[in-house]
Amino acid sequence: MESTSTVKHPVSSPLIADLISLALQEDLSLGDVTSELTIEPSQRAKASIRAKEDLVVCGGGWLIEEISAAAALPLSLLSYKDDGERVRSGGSIAELEGSARTLLSIERTVLNFLQHLSAIATHVDSVMKQTTKLMVLDTRKTLPGYRILEKYAVRVGGARNHRMSLGDMILIKDNHIAANGGDLRTTLVRVFERKAPYMPVEVEVTSLEEIRVALEFPVQVLLLDNMDDVMLSKAVTLVRKSSPDVLLEASGRVTQERFATFEKIGIDTVSMGALTYGASHVDISMDIVLE
Amino acid sequence: MESTSTVKHPVSSPLIADLISLALQEDLSLGDVTSELTIEPSQRAKASIRAKEDLVVCGGGWLIEEISAAAALPLSLLSYKDDGERVRSGGSIAELEGSARTLLSIERTVLNFLQHLSAIATHVDSVMKQTTKLMVLDTRKTLPGYRILEKYAVRVGGARNHRMSLGDMILIKDNHIAANGGDLRTTLVRVFERKAPYMPVEVEVTSLEEIRVALEFPVQVLLLDNMDDVMLSKAVTLVRKSSPDVLLEASGRVTQERFATFEKIGIDTVSMGALTYGASHVDISMDIVLE
Amino acid sequence: MESTSTVKHPVSSPLIADLISLALQEDLSLGDVTSELTIEPSQRAKASIRAKEDLVVCGGGWLIEEISAAAALPLSLLSYKDDGERVRSGGSIAELEGSARTLLSIERTVLNFLQHLSAIATHVDSVMKQTTKLMVLDTRKTLPGYRILEKYAVRVGGARNHRMSLGDMILIKDNHIAANGGDLRTTLVRVFERKAPYMPVEVEVTSLEEIRVALEFPVQVLLLDNMDDVMLSKAVTLVRKSSPDVLLEASGRVTQERFATFEKIGIDTVSMGALTYGASHVDISMDIVLE
Amino acid sequence: MESTSTVKHPVSSPLIADLISLALQEDLSLGDVTSELTIEPSQRAKASIRAKEDLVVCGGGWLIEEISAAAALPLSLLSYKDDGERVRSGGSIAELEGSARTLLSIERTVLNFLQHLSAIATHVDSVMKQTTKLMVLDTRKTLPGYRILEKYAVRVGGARNHRMSLGDMILIKDNHIAANGGDLRTTLVRVFERKAPYMPVEVEVTSLEEIRVALEFPVQVLLLDNMDDVMLSKAVTLVRKSSPDVLLEASGRVTQERFATFEKIGIDTVSMGALTYGASHVDISMDIVLE
Amino acid sequence: MESTSTVKHPVSSPLIADLISLALQEDLSLGDVTSELTIEPSQRAKASIRAKEDLVVCGGGWLIEEISAAAALPLSLLSYKDDGERVRSGGSIAELEGSARTLLSIERTVLNFLQHLSAIATHVDSVMKQTTKLMVLDTRKTLPGYRILEKYAVRVGGARNHRMSLGDMILIKDNHIAANGGDLRTTLVRVFERKAPYMPVEVEVTSLEEIRVALEFPVQVLLLDNMDDVMLSKAVTLVRKSSPDVLLEASGRVTQERFATFEKIGIDTVSMGALTYGASHVDISMDIVLE
Amino acid sequence: MESTSTVKHPVSSPLIADLISLALQEDLSLGDVTSELTIEPSQRAKASIRAKEDLVVCGGGWLIEEISAAAALPLSLLSYKDDGERVRSGGSIAELEGSARTLLSIERTVLNFLQHLSAIATHVDSVMKQTTKLMVLDTRKTLPGYRILEKYAVRVGGARNHRMSLGDMILIKDNHIAANGGDLRTTLVRVFERKAPYMPVEVEVTSLEEIRVALEFPVQVLLLDNMDDVMLSKAVTLVRKSSPDVLLEASGRVTQERFATFEKIGIDTVSMGALTYGASHVDISMDIVLE
Repeated sequence: MESTSTVKHPVSSPLIADLISLALQEDLSLGDVTSELTIEPSQRAKASIRAKEDLVVCGGGWLIEEISAAAALPLSLLSYKDDGERVRSGGSIAELEGSARTLLSIERTVLNFLQHLSAIATHVDSVMKQTTKLMVLDTRKTLPGYRILEKYAVRVGGARNHRMSLGDMILIKDNHIAANGGDLRTTLVRVFERKAPYMPVEVEVTSLEEIRVALEFPVQVLLLDNMDDVMLSKAVTLVRKSSPDVLLEASGRVTQERFATFEKIGIDTVSMGALTYGASHVDISMDIVLE
Repeated sequence: MESTSTVKHPVSSPLIADLISLALQEDLSLGDVTSELTIEPSQRAKASIRAKEDLVVCGGGWLIEEISAAAALPLSLLSYKDDGERVRSGGSIAELEGSARTLLSIERTVLNFLQHLSAIATHVDSVMKQTTKLMVLDTRKTLPGYRILEKYAVRVGGARNHRMSLGDMILIKDNHIAANGGDLRTTLVRVFERKAPYMPVEVEVTSLEEIRVALEFPVQVLLLDNMDDVMLSKAVTLVRKSSPDVLLEASGRVTQERFATFEKIGIDTVSMGALTYGASHVDISMDIVLE
Repeated sequence: MESTSTVKHPVSSPLIADLISLALQEDLSLGDVTSELTIEPSQRAKASIRAKEDLVVCGGGWLIEEISAAAALPLSLLSYKDDGERVRSGGSIAELEGSARTLLSIERTVLNFLQHLSAIATHVDSVMKQTTKLMVLDTRKTLPGYRILEKYAVRVGGARNHRMSLGDMILIKDNHIAANGGDLRTTLVRVFERKAPYMPVEVEVTSLEEIRVALEFPVQVLLLDNMDDVMLSKAVTLVRKSSPDVLLEASGRVTQERFATFEKIGIDTVSMGALTYGASHVDISMDIVLE
Repeated sequence: MESTSTVKHPVSSPLIADLISLALQEDLSLGDVTSELTIEPSQRAKASIRAKEDLVVCGGGWLIEEISAAAALPLSLLSYKDDGERVRSGGSIAELEGSARTLLSIERTVLNFLQHLSAIATHVDSVMKQTTKLMVLDTRKTLPGYRILEKYAVRVGGARNHRMSLGDMILIKDNHIAANGGDLRTTLVRVFERKAPYMPVEVEVTSLEEIRVALEFPVQVLLLDNMDDVMLSKAVTLVRKSSPDVLLEASGRVTQERFATFEKIGIDTVSMGALTYGASHVDISMDIVLE
Repeated sequence: MESTSTVKHPVSSPLIADLISLALQEDLSLGDVTSELTIEPSQRAKASIRAKEDLVVCGGGWLIEEISAAAALPLSLLSYKDDGERVRSGGSIAELEGSARTLLSIERTVLNFLQHLSAIATHVDSVMKQTTKLMVLDTRKTLPGYRILEKYAVRVGGARNHRMSLGDMILIKDNHIAANGGDLRTTLVRVFERKAPYMPVEVEVTSLEEIRVALEFPVQVLLLDNMDDVMLSKAVTLVRKSSPDVLLEASGRVTQERFATFEKIGIDTVSMGALTYGASHVDISMDIVLE
Repeated sequence: MESTSTVKHPVSSPLIADLISLALQEDLSLGDVTSELTIEPSQRAKASIRAKEDLVVCGGGWLIEEISAAAALPLSLLSYKDDGERVRSGGSIAELEGSARTLLSIERTVLNFLQHLSAIATHVDSVMKQTTKLMVLDTRKTLPGYRILEKYAVRVGGARNHRMSLGDMILIKDNHIAANGGDLRTTLVRVFERKAPYMPVEVEVTSLEEIRVALEFPVQVLLLDNMDDVMLSKAVTLVRKSSPDVLLEASGRVTQERFATFEKIGIDTVSMGALTYGASHVDISMDIVLE
């Protein structure tokens, strides 16, 4: 029963299969009429997927295999670059062989995935060159349906993941506090009385007073949202004195230009929605040669 | 059985429901732990969705209703802007009321959809200001899973759609011709002998000779890919003489800067992948006030 | 990863897999109790699928493979006739080998598909013998869930496809005109201003006046519904004079008896719902021999 | 939470929703482009579904409601005929009101279901007029995906159902016996030792000797397949003597012409695949009037 | 296309695949973060699944294969015990080999299924030791989603199945009679007039009078619910006299202690919800050794 | 669009809808034949769901609403107990009204869910009476498909949740260490270099030496598996000295009898698979009265 494929599949969420299935439905529900009219089923071809600019690969070999399997359109992966490898403009990302119809039918789906994920990995990689000490995090501002894949591309690019969903971490913001009479302490008592004990708690704080209250509880992270540098410094000093293990996260229109300042102030992590939504397009092509 | 909602739902493809369902699964499969721990189910709230920059709305009222229904988390839509309306920075896109938990649980999913589609509509709108005569078309370079929605946003922004999938139009490219001995005429004979008679045929041509062959058949469109202006002019002259009704499409790294030239030369349509993948992020926020 | 199957799969829509899955659910959700009680899992068998009357095969080898894969009940396809081949009464359509339980469990599903699709292909084939010049088209009057498969069977039988769905072609009928004040010109202006430019437009016309209006626009097809021969002749004359490339489709209780007249008048295409819903049952059996 | 619909939904299998969903996907995945281009969302209309020939309704009000709900396209059912009612040519089957777009978008899906199920109900009804004593049964020769609906139409037409699937009844045929050394007694011993005790057992018998063996066990039904009248008479005489409660089923190219003979011989039931696959098309139309 | 697996898959319902898919979604939607961080994809391992107490195996080899296939995480099954085999504490149930990540990612899902089904099979096996003559049946009191699997475990343990669903047998209880004016005869007339003729009928009776009425019809089973031994004896005597083939089922808080009495009285079958919901946990472990 | 239901739905995972859909498929795919034959669609009824023993309710009002909605079988919830309320034997859990057919068709599905979840909540409630200081946790040893629901029942019963899946927390066990040369420090360096920074880390330790290594890293929890009391005490002393905030979890055949000792030793949390798989059945009935 063991498959002979030696491709490493780095993420195994069933949600990826659902997204691929949707992609195939929208493009192939009525078939690939042009290929069906012009190409014999027995016609074989080779395809070369190449970078048209320098990039960090993401969504290569393994994703092509999953798309091919989902479409029940088999092909052979002759060679491929691992996700995370840098490829120069003109370099090969993957070499495929199979039925010409198959290659043409899945070409666009393969490229659309590969370009989107490689764009994020490449963007993240360039952002990470601006800092050696900060942990840079993504957010939940990912494209609906792409949470798992975009967060994977962030890791491939060298940054790290904030929470994956609304269910794997507690993040207390203004509305949650407002629902408890505007009182942070009341809110935190309620949370710690009932929460899953190992689930981490992050609290968004807006003043030194709120920081003091939060530090009365075993919180993992304080979210310092939209603070200026002076305020950030005060927050760091206050926290480091009493609770050296609590992580400090800056967020709110964070740009790479502020990384050096954050490092100097002593911030641990920054979260940037633009890690995922701010990536520019990268160009990748597939050249198909009939055999 | 008639719903009382008066919101117009502009697109009715079942694929949209599948994408929304995927979005809810990735964010809410383990629930919204923070809201469940801090907010009473009976707590009501109002939410105001506002533009943080000038934009063209896309994915507003009707999509919020579909997300809410798919999540089985009901809410009331107090007011909303129609898709296609221009909203200035600070202006309201939609006003909601419902359970506070509900509003917090779907906030990010709603905003992520709305920002992505409004970004495309806004980008397309600005592109369309550069031409009054050209028909500007999208491509199949859409995010996998988003074909229907992104092509809808293109229409909202004022441009038009190229084919939706591999199954609703014939587009003959180099590989299809190569599979027929490299002979365009042979390929076209084969296509016209067996194709669905009303299905339109577009042919990618690379020389005047190929144009002459293509015009022997009742094709709807000629795709002039990556041609310089001189070559484009020759193509237009040749085609207009014999086949005034055949549409001429320019493609291949098309930018708005070339629109004026295309108009002068007499091109009918241009297709631009960047219409969808080239849109920049637009910023939209949701402010929630407990009642 | 390349499968060793050499069977050509002619249609690759994911909707076919959904229909097969439904078929297996309705027949096998509670298992195949008789086979499970009476046959050892290790018992092997051969099966011969044979025509019980002359027919054109449709839904043979490749569909059997898809059913077997969907049911996770593997079998070997020893030989099979390609779709479109004529088989005389008694002739073999496919020879299978596998677990006896598997063959019995999928026998009925395989035969039910094969009989339905072969019935349509055989019927279409006989209809097509009545004309050499007319293009005969199907309609959207297909069994819900069978659109892709029945339209495929129509092609196998030698006729051609009208539009596949409500989304791949514009077909303007009386209600669409009525919604625009009953004015065809207004309707067409509206359509051509906003439609996807390559999407073909067909207009149902009921008078010479409407034909004249329609011909002011670059429509692909005129639908002449329920017209008598005199009216058809007038329409053909009018259209051929000014717009020789516009296709003319006759519809409305079209029967083979009128084919010769249509040809003489100069009609291009006829659409017949009965191509799919009018096919009579064909008889096919599966003989299973234990090994 | 109680719906205000007063329509009786006669079958509640979740498989019906799956089939409807498939039907909507194949027709509406790319939207209804014509209606979207020509009709305002606010335009209201009435629709009248009428018989174009005498028929027995099946798949009326309740199925229209389910299609409308599945498509999330609400409409009002003003009046409707219950399934099983006879409607004369020209008579109304259902009167609807709703958005004009909605009515046009689901018209074909509604009619395709209604015509197929009414065709079966009407055919069955006419078959049942040929006998007052025989119980006439369908088979598993139903269209894949339509098992529940076609068997429902059989009941509406006045005949009865044989088993629904491979899992709700034991039916021992030649291959099951062959797998047990060709010995019916061995086969039956094995079945009765392990079967669910209340699950009925039917045995296909081909000789008086096999009937004698079968009657040693508490079987419910004997299947007399492809026997001539003399043989049938002998079988009836043998069985009635010793086991008056065992039902006798004739099958194998059964036609209505033999009903009288079967009654005289004393057969209890006949099973006819043609009850479902032999129904001719019935014609039903939907007239839409804008408001 | 024939798989090389030699594992016998005893149940082939598509509902099992749906449940496995759900199990994988709930555990693996966000991936297996620990294994992904600590183990190389190329690391191989062996796993030994062992009983930690004496048990009857159920859900072994074949179910492991189905889980592995559904997760697209291939592994090799080196050896395994067939369902129904008795394994002593410490004994091997299955030996696996594959990627270490794969084994760790599916370990818990495999064990959770295996423990639940083996617990039922083991429990049923012990119950069946208390009787040699009674047919012991399960009920529909199974865990939602587990109907097929739990009923399979009941068979593996040596007992038999009552009906599988609400659709494969008629079981008339008090409410059905109440809906017919409280009159059993009226109810039965109605049922026999319209029911699928081979579908078995069971009637719950509460008095000798009701038994007499029921026996006027060809019912298969009488359900004697919550009767004391005296009443049961009277019922048996009454039924055996006139209708020796009718089965008699006792139910209602049936315990093994009453088996001997039931046998003496002459009851045929007993149905026990506790066959499935009353099974105690059995302990099974998976030991993984890296290679 | 706001539903008028006032029932609070405590968990909103889309996986629950999938499980309910599976439950309906397995029981109702072939319909509810008995009710369809014996009860008029217009017949109304009331149903009273009552505890047959003292219990803590779980899976009441809201789950009944979800089942009813999923089945498209509407009913009215007249009154109900909130999840977590104690109900004495004989007390009402919910009062329903609706079509008699509906109530009968979903009775068993409703009761099977309610009994399973209430059994867990009741069991957990009794376990929690044995301790006031320990945090008692569940495990991933839940029934496949029931992760969300069983963990919810644990919370309703008063205990807390360990991780929900393999993706929301890092738990390093022997195999993960073995894959890193058996060296815990190497393993932890690797994890902390790349992990999502806020994701909590738990390490299973087997010696004081391993505890010392683990405490060099900011781990949240140490898992003390299968240690005797002496060893546990040493572990507590060592950890409390240097890392007072690290949580200590005891696991491995934990029983309530050891709770007092754990408290004395100073353990923070215990995890017990038996919290979910060790619950005994609770008895709940539904009485239906026709109106």
